[in-house]
Amino acid sequence: MNKIEPQNVKGFRDLLPSNAYRKNEIVSIIRRVYESYGFLPVETPGLEYLEILLGEYGEENTKQIFRFKSPEEQEVALRFDLTVPLARIVAQYNDLPKPFKRYQVGPVWRADKPDPGRFREFTQFDADAVGTSSQVAEAEVIGAVVTALRQIGVGDFVVNINSRKVLNAVVRYSGIPAGRAKDVFRVLDKLNKVGLENVELELTKGRRDVSGDFIPGLGLTDKNVRKIKDYLALPKGERKKVLEEISGLLGQDSCDDLARLDGYLDALGLESSIVSFDPTIARGLDYYTGPVFEVNLKDKPQFGSVAGGGRYDNLVKRFTDTDIPAVGFSIGVDRLLAAMDDGGEETNFTDVVVTIMDPDKLDEYLRIANELRGAGVRTDLYLGQEKGLRKQLQYADRVSARFAIIMGSDEIQKGVVTIKDLKAGESVSKDSAQREEWLKKSRQIQREIPRRELVPEVLKLISQK
Amino acid sequence: MNKIEPQNVKGFRDLLPSNAYRKNEIVSIIRRVYESYGFLPVETPGLEYLEILLGEYGEENTKQIFRFKSPEEQEVALRFDLTVPLARIVAQYNDLPKPFKRYQVGPVWRADKPDPGRFREFTQFDADAVGTSSQVAEAEVIGAVVTALRQIGVGDFVVNINSRKVLNAVVRYSGIPAGRAKDVFRVLDKLNKVGLENVELELTKGRRDVSGDFIPGLGLTDKNVRKIKDYLALPKGERKKVLEEISGLLGQDSCDDLARLDGYLDALGLESSIVSFDPTIARGLDYYTGPVFEVNLKDKPQFGSVAGGGRYDNLVKRFTDTDIPAVGFSIGVDRLLAAMDDGGEETNFTDVVVTIMDPDKLDEYLRIANELRGAGVRTDLYLGQEKGLRKQLQYADRVSARFAIIMGSDEIQKGVVTIKDLKAGESVSKDSAQREEWLKKSRQIQREIPRRELVPEVLKLISQK
Repeated sequence: MNKIEPQNVKGFRDLLPSNAYRKNEIVSIIRRVYESYGFLPVETPGLEYLEILLGEYGEENTKQIFRFKSPEEQEVALRFDLTVPLARIVAQYNDLPKPFKRYQVGPVWRADKPDPGRFREFTQFDADAVGTSSQVAEAEVIGAVVTALRQIGVGDFVVNINSRKVLNAVVRYSGIPAGRAKDVFRVLDKLNKVGLENVELELTKGRRDVSGDFIPGLGLTDKNVRKIKDYLALPKGERKKVLEEISGLLGQDSCDDLARLDGYLDALGLESSIVSFDPTIARGLDYYTGPVFEVNLKDKPQFGSVAGGGRYDNLVKRFTDTDIPAVGFSIGVDRLLAAMDDGGEETNFTDVVVTIMDPDKLDEYLRIANELRGAGVRTDLYLGQEKGLRKQLQYADRVSARFAIIMGSDEIQKGVVTIKDLKAGESVSKDSAQREEWLKKSRQIQREIPRRELVPEVLKLISQK
Repeated sequence: MNKIEPQNVKGFRDLLPSNAYRKNEIVSIIRRVYESYGFLPVETPGLEYLEILLGEYGEENTKQIFRFKSPEEQEVALRFDLTVPLARIVAQYNDLPKPFKRYQVGPVWRADKPDPGRFREFTQFDADAVGTSSQVAEAEVIGAVVTALRQIGVGDFVVNINSRKVLNAVVRYSGIPAGRAKDVFRVLDKLNKVGLENVELELTKGRRDVSGDFIPGLGLTDKNVRKIKDYLALPKGERKKVLEEISGLLGQDSCDDLARLDGYLDALGLESSIVSFDPTIARGLDYYTGPVFEVNLKDKPQFGSVAGGGRYDNLVKRFTDTDIPAVGFSIGVDRLLAAMDDGGEETNFTDVVVTIMDPDKLDEYLRIANELRGAGVRTDLYLGQEKGLRKQLQYADRVSARFAIIMGSDEIQKGVVTIKDLKAGESVSKDSAQREEWLKKSRQIQREIPRRELVPEVLKLISQK
């Protein structure tokens, strides 16, 4: 029989235990923080009717959607974000709290050209406040994301903020027709990735990208571009200083929402070093209408933004006549995971592996496992064919267990059991030959105790860790 | 502008906060229990190449798959379970622990005809042990599921077990060609749902279902069916008794795996009242080769099985020449959630809502929210337009908050704050007019305290709850 090649669909990938475990940890920290900020959970399906997702979206965005026919021959598609489904449910259910603060975590799909580190399925963790035009809502979602990222321990990061109101004023100031504004924002959004020179080409006559494909330009005049460059040259960072500069160039009206937000951020104790204003931030999505934000890692700029969001006051209008202002912030969980994957820290999935020294005594090993699990110890029972201790200890190592329980028929008869510490000395050195030496030595660390003392002894050892 | 109708794709649904919150709780209990049993997490994508999922599956199953073309014009599909993707990753990655005990939770999709309570997207939570032919593995996955369901508190349930080895012996005993065995199992799997009479029709000449569609029969003879009915009439329940009866009818060889499993279940202290043998259990999936199990709720049989699984020793062979035996158990999280939805117990999402009595003092309210969150209190800050207290307290009720914090400009000046208990007296009566009365009265329960005592006081109140 012909074997089927075991492989992922192009642009998709698996998370094996170490990464899946760390992702769970990240997700549960964010969940706890978002709940502490009063966001309520919802879940929406992976599939939506295509028209729900498309709305006023342009051709460029529709190409990124996985679309197909339902069994009823209707056009359906995999969701590409969690924001449009939120707008749908706000319009669909009348009995939600108003304002509605919700969080949602789940996969989204984009039929992008896959790159190394850029996948077609990735997990977003969003917090949004719908039905409020107050900039306190911006301060709340920013505060929630800052708290979550701090607790995750992602290292130094900064939330960079700008406003579409400012950017609209820039478009006016530069003499560009308002109808071109969204095209301009999409180009400006690439600034950090492709640099000012390429942005300038895309604003004017177009350019070829690295693979030789031609990216058409917007056809703006040199005068238009000069004004945009004046604006982009404004300082970034210190919020009050940036407000002053923007105000000077574009008028105070352009940044009144940012000014209010600045005050609320002060009240939350969030300083410019962690939440700063940055005139170059634009965000690519069409639906933003007010402040926009993104999070960048100070020491790892190559990962791009690990979170992004902003105010979108018109999205719910796609589904209902009511005007429902909203603001949200989305954490890219996979990018965060990738950025934190420094090859260090081994994860301890399991506390104890119970080895099988005498296959005729399986009942006794099952009882031991049962007792340990009942006491809250993460306990694996060796299920393989290997009869030797060495191979079973290799298995214990492979599942990152901390201790092995060893007991042959003699020990069972005598009522004793051996606990072997598999990780003692590991903290000494992480990656040297010296560590190997240490490990060998530390593997000697084992102790025989009475069988009846096993559970309390293991609990003690684990808590010492 | 034409509005787009906000609606779900046929057969799909949303989980609003109360259900989403309870689902999170169920998932995190199962996760903790599976980890305590030494299962390691993995994640696989929602999409797989179609050939990965199809394998030797028959036409009946392929109809249930959502399939479409990737941007590279390859045939892809949404996964319909988590077991086939597991078989793929075991064949794809050489460096997994052997045996490999993994858990995975996630949505799966089936293009079934949607029924009330039967959805096209649902969440499975699977635990599998791959690379072990020992029946200890069966005992382990059963023990894990029993522990998880007990901790979730789903009420009385029973794990019903049979074996494909027994069922194959039934097919031989009944004089049915071995090649028809899987067809017979698929029909037997419907026994609990459609009854013996309809099963008999499907085994012979076929029948019309409730909607009038004709279900073709397998064309077995009356003699074949009489023998099957002899077998189905065997007692169920008490494991040792059932083993004896099966052994008497079909020979001891047919149930040697069940006999070994029985011994391990004894060692784990799992009695027949919670894990029983049932000759009528068949399971519908083709890939099972040994013991099969399902979980039924004693008081809620209408929900069908809330978990199912079994041994599948040939599935990995689809992808590799190596013979890799495996066993797994899958919990249907959504069905469990539905079965537990008795309309009772209100969920407390939020501890405290900070009301806005003076919009000019937003900074102070933000600081209060910040302090409470920092102390671990789940705190919502009112973001709506309503200025009156009554409307803001209605909001607090709507998000199931326990307490409201009330402070106007006078109180801010005086350095005091009021804590209002929104739920006092609720335990008295759940659904009567009396409760309304109580609530009104209890809403009076509020206390003014010095501002500096707010955080410790709230912490004390929450811990008393």
